[in-house]
Amino acid sequence: MSAATTGRLWVIGTGPGPDRWMTPETAAILAEATDLVGYVPYVARCPERPDQIRHASDNRVEIDRARHALEMAAAGRHVAVVSGGDPGVFAMAAAVMEAIDHGPAEWRALDVTVHPGVSAMQAAAARLGAPLGADFCVISLSDNLKPWDVVARRLKAAAEVDFVIALYNPASKARPRQIFDAFEILRGVKDPATLIVFARAVGRPDERIHITTLADADPSLVDMATCVIIGNSATKTIERGPGREPWVYSPRTVSAD
Amino acid sequence: MSAATTGRLWVIGTGPGPDRWMTPETAAILAEATDLVGYVPYVARCPERPDQIRHASDNRVEIDRARHALEMAAAGRHVAVVSGGDPGVFAMAAAVMEAIDHGPAEWRALDVTVHPGVSAMQAAAARLGAPLGADFCVISLSDNLKPWDVVARRLKAAAEVDFVIALYNPASKARPRQIFDAFEILRGVKDPATLIVFARAVGRPDERIHITTLADADPSLVDMATCVIIGNSATKTIERGPGREPWVYSPRTVSAD
Repeated sequence: MSAATTGRLWVIGTGPGPDRWMTPETAAILAEATDLVGYVPYVARCPERPDQIRHASDNRVEIDRARHALEMAAAGRHVAVVSGGDPGVFAMAAAVMEAIDHGPAEWRALDVTVHPGVSAMQAAAARLGAPLGADFCVISLSDNLKPWDVVARRLKAAAEVDFVIALYNPASKARPRQIFDAFEILRGVKDPATLIVFARAVGRPDERIHITTLADADPSLVDMATCVIIGNSATKTIERGPGREPWVYSPRTVSAD
Repeated sequence: MSAATTGRLWVIGTGPGPDRWMTPETAAILAEATDLVGYVPYVARCPERPDQIRHASDNRVEIDRARHALEMAAAGRHVAVVSGGDPGVFAMAAAVMEAIDHGPAEWRALDVTVHPGVSAMQAAAARLGAPLGADFCVISLSDNLKPWDVVARRLKAAAEVDFVIALYNPASKARPRQIFDAFEILRGVKDPATLIVFARAVGRPDERIHITTLADADPSLVDMATCVIIGNSATKTIERGPGREPWVYSPRTVSAD
């Protein structure tokens, strides 16, 4: 059997930060892979292994990173492509699929598998109570790969039919304005009292939770590490007394109009 | 300190089935809890411990189950409320929050925490490639707790702005018709060639994957253990040759109109 047929590519996610949220499957793959490919902070979450090669790269080159990983797998390496969170939610799984789709035919025969993980919105939801307890939408605010008009129409539609909304990639240094524009769209449709949560780096040492309303929300508090959750019309808080943050939850029951 | 102040309630999820998808945090809680409360098949996934009491119940009484768990925690027990998947996605976290919200004031002071897990759509997405790689919506088709009209409007809006859609609770013996009605709504809006996946019991011995199109989809194949994924207009397959299921993925890039 040639080296090319013994290569291997796993697409995995570490979860949002702490080891306690990394699945045993992902931990086992990290222990087996000869090479790790991923954005620097996600690769840094993986246990150190002196015999493993780390190809840590900048975040903006997902498709190049996917191709590099596939090339190494085709050459017989056992490669793990590492995302934070779940690789299937605004992360590397789609980039790897695109690379295979547009790459050499031999990549389709490679032993490639994708493995689920805990995504940032789920860690945020757990920390808060149950804000995603009703029907919800998940939208990336980045317009690097899609026109802003598409994002705007989706936000408006989601608000009109009262989905809870989780926003990924809400802001970056290169894209500071989208989150302001998004809140303008939401303010045109939703009640000013709608609950908003900025859940930053949940589970990590720099975690910061900010619970507010659509009327009072200050989008300048949002950065790349923030998951923004926008309540539906029934999302509410449960006060727990002094010194304790309230719970935030979206009731399962929707009344008839 | 009274027994009442030393009680504990964890809201956890086992993941969609196999142990390899259960987080270490959840496994540690299962090893510590004195009592497990949950729907029979989810409790059955937890490792056996002779010193632990299992309160396994029928699926239709979430709010009673939540109250029972809170009563035991208030009496000093260390109780884990067990969902399949992620407790925050159409599972017990919202029911526990509702029970606290409408229950005795002392429940608000209890030591309650929610912990994230891998949800069924994520296991299905990983198995398929990256169908959730673009903006997506998550909708429960059950009309036990919300009017069908709300579900219908959300489905229509989600289709019109081209979200990928994941359907939970698509059908049960008591509700066999909703999935047919949902497909009728989708057929009124979306291209007949839209990719559809029925991903049943992913990761479990009775797993069954069915990839089809909106024109050809037969909703009678869908049961309670099925996660239905409806592609957006760009969702596509990558053929991998004889004997291998194609990949299904939603490209990250959306072209301008």
